[in-house]
Amino acid sequence: MKEEKIGKVKMIPLGGLEEIGMNMTAFEYEDEIIVVDCGLSFPDDDMLGIDLVIPDTTYLKENIEKVKGLIITHGHEDHIGAIPYIFDEINIPIYATKLTMALIEGKLKERNMQGNVRRKVVKYGQSIILDSFRIEFIRTNHSISDAAALAIYTPAGVIVHTGDFKIDYTPVFGDAIDLARFGELGKKGVLALLCDSTNAERPGFTMSERTVGKTIEHIFSENTKSRIIVATFASNVDRVQQIINCAYQYGRKVIIEGRSMVNIITIAGELGYLNIPENTLIDIELMKNYTDDQLVLITTGSQGESMAALSRMAASIHKKVTIKPTDIVVLSSHPIPGNEKAVSRVINELSMKGAKVIFQDTHVSGHACQEEIKLIYSLVKPKYAIPVHGEYRHLKAQAELAETMGIPKENIFLLSAGDVLSMNEESAEVTGTVTAGGLLVDGLGVGDVGNIVLRDRQNLAENGIIIVVVTLERYSNELLAGPDIVSRGFVYVRESENLMEEARSVVNEALLGCLDKRVSDWGRIKMVIKDSLGDFLWKRMKRNPMILPIIMEV
Amino acid sequence: MKEEKIGKVKMIPLGGLEEIGMNMTAFEYEDEIIVVDCGLSFPDDDMLGIDLVIPDTTYLKENIEKVKGLIITHGHEDHIGAIPYIFDEINIPIYATKLTMALIEGKLKERNMQGNVRRKVVKYGQSIILDSFRIEFIRTNHSISDAAALAIYTPAGVIVHTGDFKIDYTPVFGDAIDLARFGELGKKGVLALLCDSTNAERPGFTMSERTVGKTIEHIFSENTKSRIIVATFASNVDRVQQIINCAYQYGRKVIIEGRSMVNIITIAGELGYLNIPENTLIDIELMKNYTDDQLVLITTGSQGESMAALSRMAASIHKKVTIKPTDIVVLSSHPIPGNEKAVSRVINELSMKGAKVIFQDTHVSGHACQEEIKLIYSLVKPKYAIPVHGEYRHLKAQAELAETMGIPKENIFLLSAGDVLSMNEESAEVTGTVTAGGLLVDGLGVGDVGNIVLRDRQNLAENGIIIVVVTLERYSNELLAGPDIVSRGFVYVRESENLMEEARSVVNEALLGCLDKRVSDWGRIKMVIKDSLGDFLWKRMKRNPMILPIIMEV
Repeated sequence: MKEEKIGKVKMIPLGGLEEIGMNMTAFEYEDEIIVVDCGLSFPDDDMLGIDLVIPDTTYLKENIEKVKGLIITHGHEDHIGAIPYIFDEINIPIYATKLTMALIEGKLKERNMQGNVRRKVVKYGQSIILDSFRIEFIRTNHSISDAAALAIYTPAGVIVHTGDFKIDYTPVFGDAIDLARFGELGKKGVLALLCDSTNAERPGFTMSERTVGKTIEHIFSENTKSRIIVATFASNVDRVQQIINCAYQYGRKVIIEGRSMVNIITIAGELGYLNIPENTLIDIELMKNYTDDQLVLITTGSQGESMAALSRMAASIHKKVTIKPTDIVVLSSHPIPGNEKAVSRVINELSMKGAKVIFQDTHVSGHACQEEIKLIYSLVKPKYAIPVHGEYRHLKAQAELAETMGIPKENIFLLSAGDVLSMNEESAEVTGTVTAGGLLVDGLGVGDVGNIVLRDRQNLAENGIIIVVVTLERYSNELLAGPDIVSRGFVYVRESENLMEEARSVVNEALLGCLDKRVSDWGRIKMVIKDSLGDFLWKRMKRNPMILPIIMEV
Repeated sequence: MKEEKIGKVKMIPLGGLEEIGMNMTAFEYEDEIIVVDCGLSFPDDDMLGIDLVIPDTTYLKENIEKVKGLIITHGHEDHIGAIPYIFDEINIPIYATKLTMALIEGKLKERNMQGNVRRKVVKYGQSIILDSFRIEFIRTNHSISDAAALAIYTPAGVIVHTGDFKIDYTPVFGDAIDLARFGELGKKGVLALLCDSTNAERPGFTMSERTVGKTIEHIFSENTKSRIIVATFASNVDRVQQIINCAYQYGRKVIIEGRSMVNIITIAGELGYLNIPENTLIDIELMKNYTDDQLVLITTGSQGESMAALSRMAASIHKKVTIKPTDIVVLSSHPIPGNEKAVSRVINELSMKGAKVIFQDTHVSGHACQEEIKLIYSLVKPKYAIPVHGEYRHLKAQAELAETMGIPKENIFLLSAGDVLSMNEESAEVTGTVTAGGLLVDGLGVGDVGNIVLRDRQNLAENGIIIVVVTLERYSNELLAGPDIVSRGFVYVRESENLMEEARSVVNEALLGCLDKRVSDWGRIKMVIKDSLGDFLWKRMKRNPMILPIIMEV
């Protein structure tokens, strides 16, 4: 009966495993909970007007006395972005590596929350102890420096969480991923492996970040006369380092443009993650003192984001940079799914201005491909495989890899947000679900825009709205004013006056019909107005605007 | 002075050269005009609620007595789709190859327009004469059968228009592109080449359609027990042929699903473009009589279109097909830019149902890559190069190829919609512009949704609308009813009652302020309401809904 004494550790994805972003996972043992990551995601196309989506932390709030700390794997938005939104209610100590913590602090500072949050910087190889949990930070590689995998020691066994990672034997900054440590853990026995699935559909091995440096050097050597503008992810400090290295080598000054780029470069420079030779960086105001062949701009906007610096340059609305036909623009990125059209628009606009746009071989992924994932499985040899990070198709692709690596099918778990997976050496199973998923953020409102509001926005977006206003006399229900018809997003009224006049007659007739029949139920009157006008417009135009009757009473 | 006698031929892109779709080009010599293609395009993301976009044919209408005929290169929507929308006003004879014409007739039939349109089917190698113009149809390959390039003979010289094309030495149906004819024309002298730019950024050579057949055969041989569902473009008859061949080889029955798929397969089968062995095709109602290993479904929806058959199967709303964990789903297509997320959603949904989704090596492009484009230039040796078909970035990529092929930079023209390029052997230049571009179609309305309406829809989509209604007494301006506040797409009112109550107070106060001050200008009152409510909501929620004050008078 010895086995009975060992409880189970629970793993609960709170932010949604099957969506990009919103990474947040709780691990629970008896009455203790630790949380890994606290990310946000950007809205889908059908979440109209939504700024971002954060994890639903109802479960943590309900169990706040159990929650011991938040451990962050790395400093990307989908792992740290939701911290400012939830820390008003859930204030727990944060543990992260140096650069990661600095980026978190930047976010807290923006909201004047820095003083209230307990924070501890952790080094690779170091462990933190939170009651029954011990969490060891393991060096990995990713498209941001200071990314860590976690070995989470629990009474029920060791859980290895890779975070987002790739294997880069020749990283630009720091050392290669600590594969030996993964191997040691595997030798001792690992209960479960949570491994990054983003590239699990891609065969082979992700190339080293240094290969991009070679392409960039080639671009510099081929275009010695032109001004060079490189757009990339602000957080890819190693990429920026390689551009700066080339600039220095070719005697060019570097201008950093775009708010997030300036922020992160400043932080990374101060902490020593970026080595900028003296007199290399110049302010954008000084650009006029230099000729094109003396300049490199490093800018945001590689995803075609409409407000980012590169998009503004492309659209001729950037205040300080005007694209010239002799410019070389390097997009050092791949479009994230959903951004393809926006990126293409920027390329078209830059091309129309005569600039040469280069986007081939200028990027490598930050995520492990199939051979890397298999390598991790071969080292860690987990009992249970729980693919994380990626859409469902990616999780499933990793599940198939795990099977080929000898993990029995029944030991592979594809979880959904809120699933409670309880496991120890004896067994593992989903034992329940808790509230989890995404909360929509629109302006300052969190969670107040739900499905009904989104459906209305969709309808308004596609068809516009027609408002019918009528004033009736109380008691007698006599028509005092109206019907007035106002439309927005339907047709341009000045060109469709006849149509609107006809629409008014249709409504008027329907309304008078009701009043003649002494219909006094306003709900009924509104329905008649809606139906008659709706029918008319569908027959005439095959369109379905939202129709909103308003009755005023005097 | 002999040269003076030869006039110039004008080329005028009417539908927009720089956008995908809406292909329509006028060629004009003295008082004669011929038109090539009449396509539609699908709306961009920011064209909310728009169904499709057709070319602006104002120029043709203004010169209708000059217009001699419409020549169609092939039967894709972006080359024939606008015909039913413009032929009420511009009824000219249509010339096209057999399958192309049958697809056009299908469109006309749907609108009962077939009787009114003169049509002539043309064979490869045949020419038609329209006054001073002679137009020769040349065999090409593309992702639809019966695609043609055109040699347009004019008094000012020969213009070669490739249409959409690729070079397939081993096509599934019919023969390879008539490269020799391109060479003959080149030997005799070609004034201008209008060449497909879609893949001008891609190095190398597009693979033969037959390579897809090999992959499909491999999928059939590896999955003999599963039901196989293949989604592809309805118009890719050769692709469908290869799937049917595999089905026959492996003793499976074929079910065709999706309206456009059924339409095109029926037409192609009747005309002999598709060879379907007897007893291979079965009706979907008979599916229940067969086991999984005896079935193949060929379906629409490979682009993730929300109403197409495959998307409905994936979302469990297809009436006749339920996806099973043992199904193999083949996406025989690449996502068209902008459709990536929709396709990914379908893959995720199918994966969640346990189906295995295959999408690698299951498609080849229908467009020529760089080496094919260069081959055409080397054969045709045109004096002027006018890249067509593709976004601006693609046109520019072809312009660069043309330069490497020895065309002087000043002889390469990147035109915009409406540009009039006048050319003969002496010279070529843009001599003017005419009305051209896109007209938005929403329901039955063509062109009545313009920028103002779209801007309103955008605003409604992102922020919703708040309507403030007030009834005032005529003359005295006394407040009789309201202010009433109604919102749609803003917040879910039941959960935000307090906010809406506060909003009402803010408006009430602003309104009473106006009335107290005896402001009688309604425009002014509306502005005060808008400003005060707008300020309140921005401060409270950082949101900017459309605010629409309506004043009724009794």
